[in-house]
Amino acid sequence: MIRVSELIQRKRDGEELPDDELAELVLGYARGDVPDYQMAAFCMAVFFRGLSERETYVLTDAMVRSGETIDLGSALGRKVVDKHSTGGVGDKTSLSVAPIVAACGVPLGKMSGRGLGHTGGTLDKLEAIPGFRTELTLDEFVVQVRDVGVAIIGQTGDLVPADKLLYALRDVTATVDQLSLIAASIMSKKIAGGAQAMVLDVKVGDGAFMRTVETARELAEAMIGLGRRAGREVVCVLTDMDQPLGAAVGNALEVREALDTVRGHGPADFTELVLDACARLLALSDLEVDEAEGRRRAEQAVADGSAERVWHRWIEAQGGTSDESALPVAPVVREVPAPSGGYVRALGANAVGNAAVHLGAGRRTKEDAVDHAVGIVCRAKRGDRVERGEPLAAVHARDEASADAAERELLAAYELGPEPPPHRPVLLGVVS
Amino acid sequence: MIRVSELIQRKRDGEELPDDELAELVLGYARGDVPDYQMAAFCMAVFFRGLSERETYVLTDAMVRSGETIDLGSALGRKVVDKHSTGGVGDKTSLSVAPIVAACGVPLGKMSGRGLGHTGGTLDKLEAIPGFRTELTLDEFVVQVRDVGVAIIGQTGDLVPADKLLYALRDVTATVDQLSLIAASIMSKKIAGGAQAMVLDVKVGDGAFMRTVETARELAEAMIGLGRRAGREVVCVLTDMDQPLGAAVGNALEVREALDTVRGHGPADFTELVLDACARLLALSDLEVDEAEGRRRAEQAVADGSAERVWHRWIEAQGGTSDESALPVAPVVREVPAPSGGYVRALGANAVGNAAVHLGAGRRTKEDAVDHAVGIVCRAKRGDRVERGEPLAAVHARDEASADAAERELLAAYELGPEPPPHRPVLLGVVS
Repeated sequence: MIRVSELIQRKRDGEELPDDELAELVLGYARGDVPDYQMAAFCMAVFFRGLSERETYVLTDAMVRSGETIDLGSALGRKVVDKHSTGGVGDKTSLSVAPIVAACGVPLGKMSGRGLGHTGGTLDKLEAIPGFRTELTLDEFVVQVRDVGVAIIGQTGDLVPADKLLYALRDVTATVDQLSLIAASIMSKKIAGGAQAMVLDVKVGDGAFMRTVETARELAEAMIGLGRRAGREVVCVLTDMDQPLGAAVGNALEVREALDTVRGHGPADFTELVLDACARLLALSDLEVDEAEGRRRAEQAVADGSAERVWHRWIEAQGGTSDESALPVAPVVREVPAPSGGYVRALGANAVGNAAVHLGAGRRTKEDAVDHAVGIVCRAKRGDRVERGEPLAAVHARDEASADAAERELLAAYELGPEPPPHRPVLLGVVS
Repeated sequence: MIRVSELIQRKRDGEELPDDELAELVLGYARGDVPDYQMAAFCMAVFFRGLSERETYVLTDAMVRSGETIDLGSALGRKVVDKHSTGGVGDKTSLSVAPIVAACGVPLGKMSGRGLGHTGGTLDKLEAIPGFRTELTLDEFVVQVRDVGVAIIGQTGDLVPADKLLYALRDVTATVDQLSLIAASIMSKKIAGGAQAMVLDVKVGDGAFMRTVETARELAEAMIGLGRRAGREVVCVLTDMDQPLGAAVGNALEVREALDTVRGHGPADFTELVLDACARLLALSDLEVDEAEGRRRAEQAVADGSAERVWHRWIEAQGGTSDESALPVAPVVREVPAPSGGYVRALGANAVGNAAVHLGAGRRTKEDAVDHAVGIVCRAKRGDRVERGEPLAAVHARDEASADAAERELLAAYELGPEPPPHRPVLLGVVS
């Protein structure tokens, strides 16, 4: 039996820990033999001392081994791909990417999480669809990926239980934002989830964990290294999160926008990101096409309606209604007019995300319920020119009081000025 | 209600915390509202970021307020003094100081702890005396200090419960050796315990928490500052713990040596430290004497037998037998001869302490029982000249096998050489 307090002390003092002892710490924690308080102290020591590349891999591997794993490739006789984002405001990319890729003949199976804080979770968005089930068994998951080409479900308790415990602990002990722990958490789920190739979208900016391209690149490199050691192909895109992605922020509003995009009518920045991710995923798949050809096929699937047909099959396969008019609608819709004319110089993603949370679209604690109907639609984005009184955004609220509050928050989030801001593309870099 | 995770994050990021929020964290922890895992992460953040002088006082004060406090001065109509040590190997100073000071007419009331690791605890030593009760009620404690002039008891659960919880947590989360936390832990107990003036012995060296005179001085200054804010007079002595103090290490052995010293027949280094502490305590007392006169009176109390008479009254008042021959004796006593002639250049306190723990004299975990009979008597100390085959030390063991192990450990602890080592006095400095 390892002496946990000694292990904490060695990490605290900057030592690199031996593989077996670090792995036993994680597995012991998952078994309940190592108490929360020791793991919390360990995580805080890691916050200050970091983990080596080797330690990060050992941690990831132990988390994977703490539970079941799926081998989607063997189960399907196909190369299965996955797409993941580190989380951002208005980030509904997976919802659009999944059916487009599947329409191109590449199976996509994804386990996703719930939102906490100002970034929404894919599961919360899907659950805005009446009837949609995010809790499939692993068998149902595999069968659906095989038969429908796409499935997005919640992380089951059987997969990576160590991560589930550890993430909940880190969330309440101020140890979330540590690069190695973030990389291990994401990659343990991706490795256990069974996809052989994946595109990871690392969000960068005001509304993301990673505030700078440099730290985003570090995280990307760490995740690629972890994937490689586990025999997975990983491509990371670094994308802008200084402003919300697309226009819609809020669960049902984002589902509508994702479907619009699958139909070819999405906002420009969001559409670009979706098609870029599709192209990369098709290039990683067993179709043996390059990115240019992948892009062409993705655009084709949108144009010919096949992507939309897969969307409906997918939603229905998971019990949801594909009738768009059944999505919940907020009772109060308030347009927020520009207080003056000018260019949108900035539109703080963090502020918009928080305004959406305050409307009820997200959670402040794990126990909070989510109001699927409410949210914000950003009509003007960075670089857009607006005249005084023209709509900046629309607030979808449960009542007038919360609409008032959101309106004030939005006005503070929009920075208007006489000159257009410097151009910042949505795609900031690629690491592979 | 404070947001604990936010507070942890602010400490993690190096902020000084507001008084009320820090106090509420401690009081909430004592109430059970703040869970161990959050407190553990907080302590580790403090390990890396430290606490300001102000934060340390707020922490100390909140710990004091977490439970009852005693006002010994009011209860007795006298100025009561206390003596405390940060803990060392063979440190039985309080056992000798208490009856000498009391014999000089100054009441001494002390709450003490148990040993953990290689340093012994005063309570464990006293419990080597058959019948001795360390668990008095607070009322019994006050009455005994008044009527007998001396009482040493265990920390009751009613006093500083926050410290009791916090110390146990720090012990298993590698957050013990942080200067502010050590200072707050010691001083909260001293302040709640009610003595108005005290001598604190900060041990320095291989066998102590503080390895250098510099860090010991920092701790001393922190404790003096905390005492001053709480209206207590504090004098700190910095004393050597590179080798064990005196000759005896182990509970019954140390009780014998303490009594020998009260009678004037103790080892030179230990006797010096005891008389020095007595002189300082008498100078702090309401006798209105200076240290030189205090020293003279302490020597007098030893010489005329009055200190020994108080010893017996004290031990009997707490239910112990004052018959020395009733102290437990180990079945195996083994002399350890010097493997070569030379000067004792070093005698590692840590190594000797660990050898004693391995014999059963101390605890490895809180649940371990202590064998009061076993231990070590160091016959040669640093600077002594020994010839080959002359006894270095005696091992008092439960059986031959543990005596063998202790002999090996002792031989490794003694460093012999042809030249005498540089002189290092037992008293390294005074801070007041």
